This record gives sequence, C-alpha cells and structure tokens, in this order.
Amino acid sequence: MADLVIRNATVVTCDGRGTVIREGGVAVENGRITHVGPAAEIEAIAANARQIVDGSRHILMPGLINTHCHAGDSLFRGLVENLPLEPWLQNVWKAEGAILNRQTTYLGSVLGFAELLLTGVTTVMDMFWYPDETVRAARTLGLRVSTGGIFFDPPGVTGHDLSGRIAEAERFFEEFGDAEDVFPAILPHGAYTVSPENLRIAKEIAERQGALFCTHAAETRAEQDDVANRYGRSVIRHLEHLGLLDKRTVLAHCVHLDDEEIEILARTGASVAHNPMSNMKLASGFARVPDMLSAGINVTLGTDGAISGNDLDMWIALRLAATIHKAFAGRADVVSTGEALAMATSAGAKALGAAEHIGSLEPGKFADMILVDCKRPHAVPIFDPVTHLVYSTAKSDVRHVFVGGRQVVKDGVLTRHNVEDTIAAVERLQPKIAASISA
Amino acid sequence: MADLVIRNATVVTCDGRGTVIREGGVAVENGRITHVGPAAEIEAIAANARQIVDGSRHILMPGLINTHCHAGDSLFRGLVENLPLEPWLQNVWKAEGAILNRQTTYLGSVLGFAELLLTGVTTVMDMFWYPDETVRAARTLGLRVSTGGIFFDPPGVTGHDLSGRIAEAERFFEEFGDAEDVFPAILPHGAYTVSPENLRIAKEIAERQGALFCTHAAETRAEQDDVANRYGRSVIRHLEHLGLLDKRTVLAHCVHLDDEEIEILARTGASVAHNPMSNMKLASGFARVPDMLSAGINVTLGTDGAISGNDLDMWIALRLAATIHKAFAGRADVVSTGEALAMATSAGAKALGAAEHIGSLEPGKFADMILVDCKRPHAVPIFDPVTHLVYSTAKSDVRHVFVGGRQVVKDGVLTRHNVEDTIAAVERLQPKIAASISA
Repeated sequence: MADLVIRNATVVTCDGRGTVIREGGVAVENGRITHVGPAAEIEAIAANARQIVDGSRHILMPGLINTHCHAGDSLFRGLVENLPLEPWLQNVWKAEGAILNRQTTYLGSVLGFAELLLTGVTTVMDMFWYPDETVRAARTLGLRVSTGGIFFDPPGVTGHDLSGRIAEAERFFEEFGDAEDVFPAILPHGAYTVSPENLRIAKEIAERQGALFCTHAAETRAEQDDVANRYGRSVIRHLEHLGLLDKRTVLAHCVHLDDEEIEILARTGASVAHNPMSNMKLASGFARVPDMLSAGINVTLGTDGAISGNDLDMWIALRLAATIHKAFAGRADVVSTGEALAMATSAGAKALGAAEHIGSLEPGKFADMILVDCKRPHAVPIFDPVTHLVYSTAKSDVRHVFVGGRQVVKDGVLTRHNVEDTIAAVERLQPKIAASISA
Repeated sequence: MADLVIRNATVVTCDGRGTVIREGGVAVENGRITHVGPAAEIEAIAANARQIVDGSRHILMPGLINTHCHAGDSLFRGLVENLPLEPWLQNVWKAEGAILNRQTTYLGSVLGFAELLLTGVTTVMDMFWYPDETVRAARTLGLRVSTGGIFFDPPGVTGHDLSGRIAEAERFFEEFGDAEDVFPAILPHGAYTVSPENLRIAKEIAERQGALFCTHAAETRAEQDDVANRYGRSVIRHLEHLGLLDKRTVLAHCVHLDDEEIEILARTGASVAHNPMSNMKLASGFARVPDMLSAGINVTLGTDGAISGNDLDMWIALRLAATIHKAFAGRADVVSTGEALAMATSAGAKALGAAEHIGSLEPGKFADMILVDCKRPHAVPIFDPVTHLVYSTAKSDVRHVFVGGRQVVKDGVLTRHNVEDTIAAVERLQPKIAASISA
C-alpha cells in the first residue's frame, strides 16, 4: 500500500532522458518513490493510498539541490557591501568571529534552511562552523544536508588547531556517517587558507571515510595569482598536483579557469558548483559554464551564502545559469534549459555521490519532491514545462515540499517549525551583528 | 481630512536625497500624497483619516516604473526560444500576425498588467498594437500606462499604412491626451523598421502633442551594422542626425554604444531603458550602464515583453542592474544600490516626463505606493532598507499596492479583477498560439 500518492500533476522527472508526463503523478512507500507514471497508472495505486495530494495546476518535480551554501551566514545578510572578495572576506571573518557560537550558528542555519526549504531546496551542501549544529538545524526543518568538518589554517570562529579540526571531522563521521539525511563531507576552505599539507590530510580522511571533499576554488583572479605565487601553480593545477581532484570532489565557483584547467577538471571528474549571483555581486566574474559543459564537467548550482548573494534563491541561480552565459558568449543557444535544470537537480545529486538517492523522480529514489504552482499570471501560457521552470518560475511558486515522502512545506508554510520565532530571534541579535564590523 | 493614512512602516521615499524614515508613513488626499513623515506626525493625521492601513513589518515605497514592456506579448511567453534577436523577431511577428486582434491584445495586456501590478509596478511604458486596448487593459486593473500609436513600416498586425499609423496616433491623443492615468507617447518600433522620413513624422506629431517619443535602439550589434549600412550612421548617430533625441525621448536597450554615442545621449538628455533579462536571454549583451550613469544619462529599467524575458519581473531587473555590471566591469562598486533603485523609480518618472507626479513619495505626487513584506526568512536581518530592496526583495514580497491612493492589490490579490478568468481565457487560446509559429 502506498503511503502517499501525488496525482494530476505535470511531472518533470529530471531523469536524464527529458521525460515529462503531461498528466500523471508518483507513488511513495517508506520514503521512496515506487512509481512515476501517467494518470491511469497512478489512479490504480491511489485507490489504496494512505494519503493523496492533488497536483492539479502544478508541476511536480524533484526538490532542488543547492551544492554551495553557508546557511549560517544568513545572519549577516546585507552587512558587508560593495567590496570584492578579498576585503569583503576580512569583514565577514570579523563579523563571524564576533557573533558566531553554537547557538547563533544554529539560529543562522535554521534561518537559511527555512528559506531554502520554502523555496523547494530539499538537499543542500553547506560549509560552516560547528557542522553538527548545521545538521541539527537541517533536522529541525526536515531537509537533507551535505556537510562535515571544515579545515581552515587560521583559528577562525572555533579556534581549533589542526588536531582540533581533525577531531571535529572524525567526530562528525562517527555521529552522522550512516544517516540517510546526511551526505558526509570534509570541507577545507580553500587553497589560499589551507596549506598543501593540511589539504592532503583532509583528503586522506575523506578517502578513508568514503566522504566528499569540497572546497572553494578559482573564485577570483586575485586568488589564482595568490596561489600561483605561493605554490608555483594555479589553483586547479595545485589541487590536482596534491591529488585532491576526483569524482568525490566538489569545487565551488571556478570562475577563472584556462583551457587546461577545464581539461583537468573534465579528466579528474571533479564537480563544479556554479554560483552566479555571488560571483556577480562580488565582481568575481562569469564562470566559463558553456565551456565546462562542453568539456563534460559535472556543473552544479549553488547560491553561496546570503552574505555574498543576499539571499538563497536557487530559482534565480537557475535562471541566471541559463541567461548570463548567453549574454557573455553572445550566443542565444548556449546552456540549454535542460542543461540548466540538470545543474539544479541531477548534476547536484551526482556531485554529492547521491545519484541513486536524489536528483530525479524515479522509482527507488527518495521521495524528495516539490509542487510548483503554474496558474499564476507570470506562469501562463506554458508551452514547455522545462522552459517555464528555468525562465519564469519564482521561488514563491513552490507551494508544497516533500522530503522522503513527508510534507515539510504545505501551502507555502513550514510544517515542522514556526519561522516567526526564528525571525524574531534574528532581530533580537541584529544590533549586535550591526556592531560587529565597526568594533 | 485624509482619505488614507499608511503608518508604522519603514518609508523609503526615493526622493533623490536618500531619505528613509525608519518608522513613519504617508497621508493621502484626493489621490495625492499630502504628508510623508515620522510616526508622531502621521499619527496626528491618522486620528481623522477615513482609512488607515498598518504598514508594520513592511517597507513603504513608491510603486515601480517599468519603462519598457510589451504586455500583450505575454500570450507568447516561452513560445520562441534559443534564438538571437533577428531570427527570434521573425517568429514573434509570425505569432503576433496569427493571433493578435483587439480582443486578444486586450487579453494579453490584462495578463501582463496583472503580473506587473501584483509585483508592485504602478506605471508602465508599453509599446504594442491597438494602444487604446492597452489603456483599456490598464484601466481594468488600475495602473498607469504610457503608450500611444506605434510606427512600423511593414503592415504588421494592424495592417495600417503611414496615414493609418498617423490617424491612430492622433486619435490616441484626442482620446487620452488629458487623462491622469495615461502618459501619451508616439512609439516607432526602431530605426531598422521605420524609415528616416517616417521617424521624423512620428517625432513631429510627438512634439506638436507634447508627447514622449519611444523607440528600440542599439539593441544588438547586428542592428547597429544594419542601420550603419543603410544610412551611413550608427543607430544613435542616425537618430540624432534626424533630430529625434531630446529629454522627451526614451530609447529601449542601448546595449551596443561607443563612447561618442554615450556622449550624444548625455548631451541630448534622452533616457535609456535598460532591460537586462531580455538582453541576456536574447544574447544581445550587457549594456554599458556604469558608463552611461557616469556620463549623466537618465538610465531607467524595463522588463521588455514576456516573449523575450519570459516574465515581467521588475525586481529581477532591479537586482540584475545592480549585479551584472559588477561582474562585467570586474568592480564591486559600480551601480550602487541607490542608483539601481532610482532606475526603477525616480529615473523612470523623469523619462516619462512625469517627475512631478510619480517616482517618489513626496507631498503633491500621486499616491502610487507599495508595501513590501520584510518579515520573511529571506528578508532578515535588514541593515539598510535600500540594500534589501535591491538585493533580496522578491516580487512575492509585494503585498499591497495603491495607485492614486486606491488599493489595487490587497494581500497579494488584485482588488478590481479576477485574474483566474484571464488565466482561463489564455489557456483556451493556448493551442492556437502554439500552432501559430508552425503554420
């Protein structure tokens, strides 16, 4: 007997073959999808289902996967403005140092994850201090998270030395290594903040644990120059030289790559998390997404933190991924809607090593699904649902969200948490946050 | 006695001096603002007001001004994809020719204007066939419109020859020349579709009527080359040579300008309507907005039609205006939030020759105002309201809209029209629209 059936929807499966079912639905049992099909097939199952949700007027699709985020930084939204990455980071670190502890990290993460879940993101790769607080925040709301211990050579917020970082990372695997809602990772900050030796230690732990390895890479021209000056190789070459690039690697940004670096990423199988809004706002530039896609690199999408992009809107990221490169390349046919949508779904799943569990609506996968309202003035007519999802869907069109078949957003409201409490707590903290960078 | 008081809001006046009132409101009488001030001042007026609206948790600001739109083209949203402007236009004209008549123009315009009004646009400059239907649609919903007769040398949808175009334009002035909700204009399509002689005729009518003159200009490199080949001058030089550029001119796009063309626009006082989403999606490129602002050009914002940008989201236009140029210039400090917000408000008013009536919250102006909900997970904390409006406000945050003091959107719903009827009518027409480009 099905636990849940969603019917009467336009089903965009994101299954890699472009399968769209004009009128159909899915059936769910024990948190996983058992059937995806047209109306007749789903109706037969619905007859005995425990819960039935009507998807009329909606597109049913997999939840979005945000592969680069710092949810806790939502506390600092709009605090540091009009600066390029390097001086901007100095202010960010000052604010983080003054404000963040376990409690505020949890608060900021709940704030960010609330935004993500309400807008249809069901899995997020998040890099932040106190990774166990990140998981606790994700579980408060009900979304999946890929995270783990960070590596950062300066003391940073938590003040750990190397052995402290290692201990934190190992503890994370012990606690969450087998959880269905956590994709464990090691997340060194970047080649300009973590020594080659420590990057290798981080990778060794990741390999031993079968975990993901995620880092910032080639975000700015200045970073490329900095790393080349220090180590004699550009960022991507440096990472490759250290043996850090493979199918379990997720590199955030990769804005400044030469042809050979693109070839290295393609050859090693590393994934690239593209963060168009953050890259634009910090004046980092436009990543070479069409070239990366042509080379066969697994390109995924991210929002980065709200302190750089000012919100965590994956629908804007999706739309930008499909439009900015057209303008930059002067070609209206680069980055197809199918490619862009895959970046936000199936490619994200692949990057997280979770392609068998998430990223598409297919039997056997987790029932991580969203219903997108299509009867709005900005949404009609729809000639092709994928075109609509990429170019004219807004975050507020996401009305219902399911993770593992459990409804975590209903009619645009979180089912497991009162977000007003979080907003009030953030506002109580706000004066202190404002003072943090002037201190 | 005040007809309306809105109180307890954060008031972003857009008055050109950056005035923000942290806790205050406005009073309205006979459709115009009489007071803008802090709580104490507004409370005294509220004591005798006919209607009081609580603006707590909201930013109160002027309605947005969209200076380039083809609302009726919303019927063709997502129909023609992955093409640059020139071949794209051939398909658009084919679809328009097959579908548009007075009734469908009205339907498409209501659809587009519903989207605009729900998202906080209270005035739109709209270029389309059957301009009287455009006004009828705007009046159905309750927003202001700048429009008028179009000039287009081929027969187009309406099939008029030159005398027919002139007659239509003159009739428009007779009918709407004195209306408070219409800013009359003449709108020739462009220098590549209207002969020099006919452009001059259009401008002569505009001058005689004291009307605006609006045209597409320098949208693509191909257009620049085409016009230069035909007339020996690039688009802007051609328009200047014909005497068409002055403070009553609004040029849509201006993506491809050289330094001298920027100087010409600055010297003549013509306004430029920047349409970042459309320009990106059609691969037209990135307009030189920072250079235009530095030169003193009045740069405004537009969405273009939903057939090129796929929706009419001025908030995305606003955010793009403040971010894409940072990436393109490699400078995080170009296009400030204040400059971007002015593009969507006061600069738009100036372009429409309506700076004394709209574009800011100041005594004497029309009470065209919106309330933006700030208690949402993507909206806290707010350190600076203008930063929030530019970088993290979404269209769905607009909850209440007033035009001339009358509430036209309440709690995110149109007060004067049932948009479901329009959506249903568009869907009935959809199969015919789909067939229009394959015929």
